[in-house]
Amino acid sequence: MADDVAMPMPDRAAIEAAAQRLRGQIVVTPLLASPMLDARVGRRVLVKAENLQRTGSFKFRGALNTLLLLDAAARNHGVVAFSSGNHAQGVAAAAQQLGIPATIVMPADAPAIKTANTRAYGATVVSYDRHRESREAIAERIAHEQQAALIPPFDDPRVIAGQATVGLEIARQAAELGCTPDAIVAPCSGGGLVGGIALAFAGARPAIRVYAAEPIGFDDMRRSLAAGQRVANGSAAASICDCLLAPMPGALPFAIAQHHLAGSLTVSDDDVRRAMAVAFADLKLVLEPGGAAALAAVLAGKLDDAKCIAVVASGGNVDREIFEGALDRGAN
Amino acid sequence: MADDVAMPMPDRAAIEAAAQRLRGQIVVTPLLASPMLDARVGRRVLVKAENLQRTGSFKFRGALNTLLLLDAAARNHGVVAFSSGNHAQGVAAAAQQLGIPATIVMPADAPAIKTANTRAYGATVVSYDRHRESREAIAERIAHEQQAALIPPFDDPRVIAGQATVGLEIARQAAELGCTPDAIVAPCSGGGLVGGIALAFAGARPAIRVYAAEPIGFDDMRRSLAAGQRVANGSAAASICDCLLAPMPGALPFAIAQHHLAGSLTVSDDDVRRAMAVAFADLKLVLEPGGAAALAAVLAGKLDDAKCIAVVASGGNVDREIFEGALDRGAN
Repeated sequence: MADDVAMPMPDRAAIEAAAQRLRGQIVVTPLLASPMLDARVGRRVLVKAENLQRTGSFKFRGALNTLLLLDAAARNHGVVAFSSGNHAQGVAAAAQQLGIPATIVMPADAPAIKTANTRAYGATVVSYDRHRESREAIAERIAHEQQAALIPPFDDPRVIAGQATVGLEIARQAAELGCTPDAIVAPCSGGGLVGGIALAFAGARPAIRVYAAEPIGFDDMRRSLAAGQRVANGSAAASICDCLLAPMPGALPFAIAQHHLAGSLTVSDDDVRRAMAVAFADLKLVLEPGGAAALAAVLAGKLDDAKCIAVVASGGNVDREIFEGALDRGAN
Repeated sequence: MADDVAMPMPDRAAIEAAAQRLRGQIVVTPLLASPMLDARVGRRVLVKAENLQRTGSFKFRGALNTLLLLDAAARNHGVVAFSSGNHAQGVAAAAQQLGIPATIVMPADAPAIKTANTRAYGATVVSYDRHRESREAIAERIAHEQQAALIPPFDDPRVIAGQATVGLEIARQAAELGCTPDAIVAPCSGGGLVGGIALAFAGARPAIRVYAAEPIGFDDMRRSLAAGQRVANGSAAASICDCLLAPMPGALPFAIAQHHLAGSLTVSDDDVRRAMAVAFADLKLVLEPGGAAALAAVLAGKLDDAKCIAVVASGGNVDREIFEGALDRGAN
């Protein structure tokens, strides 16, 4: 993907149109407050529980918004996507709902629950070796052969507008709770979610700082912002956050981030495990590692200048062994 | 407690007044749908996630409604309650919110998270031996000594009206999902929750069947309905559902049940563990054993004549070891 692909930036109208389009078809996930959590952190923390979204992550929003915008001819040819697992399920479930055939390219070492669910939503799953093959190349070949529409995981204005609806909901729900967050944190892989949220809050008065949360070793957004251009992660990096391993920020999310992101906060695997344990105890939510990254950043004290922070708990698709490992190691 | 205590039955107006009183102070918990869960059960299942309620269970509703109805003099003397742990937290958190001193009588073997949280909400905890002492007697002595108001866990019209607001929300949220449940199932200990919900749906057209879910050995509501009078559980019974161990139905809940309950469904500990594992995988919710009893009944095929069933997931206050044991044994 070139840096300068001329994709239109989704504007406020596109985000509001996405919200209208998705109305009644997505879960308006709750923005949860917990006095226990507030006491732990020493400030007000509101948690947007996107693990309760259809397919167990926010990805369903962007996938469904994009598929709803395909015309009848495109729908007939089907869709193809590449994904570590949450976008896979989002596209598969949205395609099933609309009667569109779907092929999903997934890493062979994706969590079992993600592969099984993607198949359960009726998609054809094509496996690849994450260390030796290019998922983009495989997906583009399939798209070419089948004349299928490629649904990108983040580098697409329709996808970003869909994810941005999380931001619109946070704004409304926080107001209902009588609290205007001074900071919002969302997990960041390619940047579609945090970029969409930043767009949704762009121009807010008073200004609301929007931060990415990234695993150590996959802090490509942080380093790209510092470098002023997109830079990739090292190939030797490893993280428990299987949904946050994109090689570099998307071109469009990075362009948004340069204008609208306050920064990126990095978290360790142990920070993430502790956040999963806290979500279990205080919130009664099942979070996957990457889905807990934003909460992890706040629990690790990375935003101790904020009074009220909204964090996105972006997904909950986690295998039992990983979850239990987090509870065992993360308990305090 | 005598069977014939002349307590007023909460009517529709009392339930709607409770909803108004609690507005903005409780979480309007989501009614979640899951295609995965529907496929498992072979029918539509909607899950009311009351584990996401403040304090991790529905009990906060009834507790706060009751405390809001106390006059200033009563508030000054404080409140006392007896509870296995969820009503304890509900009363403690509601009392803290209103600045009322609270003393809670809890069994010495209550889950650690329940006792710790009750203390964290600022209440004084008095422990007793569940097998040898009467929690009612201890609470009544304290109430007498402190001139404190006793807040019963279920046998009180104010408490039942508070719990009944769960039913009002289910009715509205199910309509938004385009589905009128033909059956609703809620876990049953003393019967305040399921009785309240049955009252909220009394007179619905078409009729909606409301069922209790009870652990084997603690099926006092089922046996009481069969006997036409309240009967107690055997003293030797044991269950993983620590929040569903009341010795017999409350007088008021039983009177409601006789008029408005379709029946009671019994579940085994293994049924409950499987439901906890399914809630983890399909819904991303942390449920405690008793909180999963209604889902367990549906998963065990006890309502295979219904097309759309709403179940209440009533609580999520569970210690890590019990939760992991359920995932390990309940995985399919």
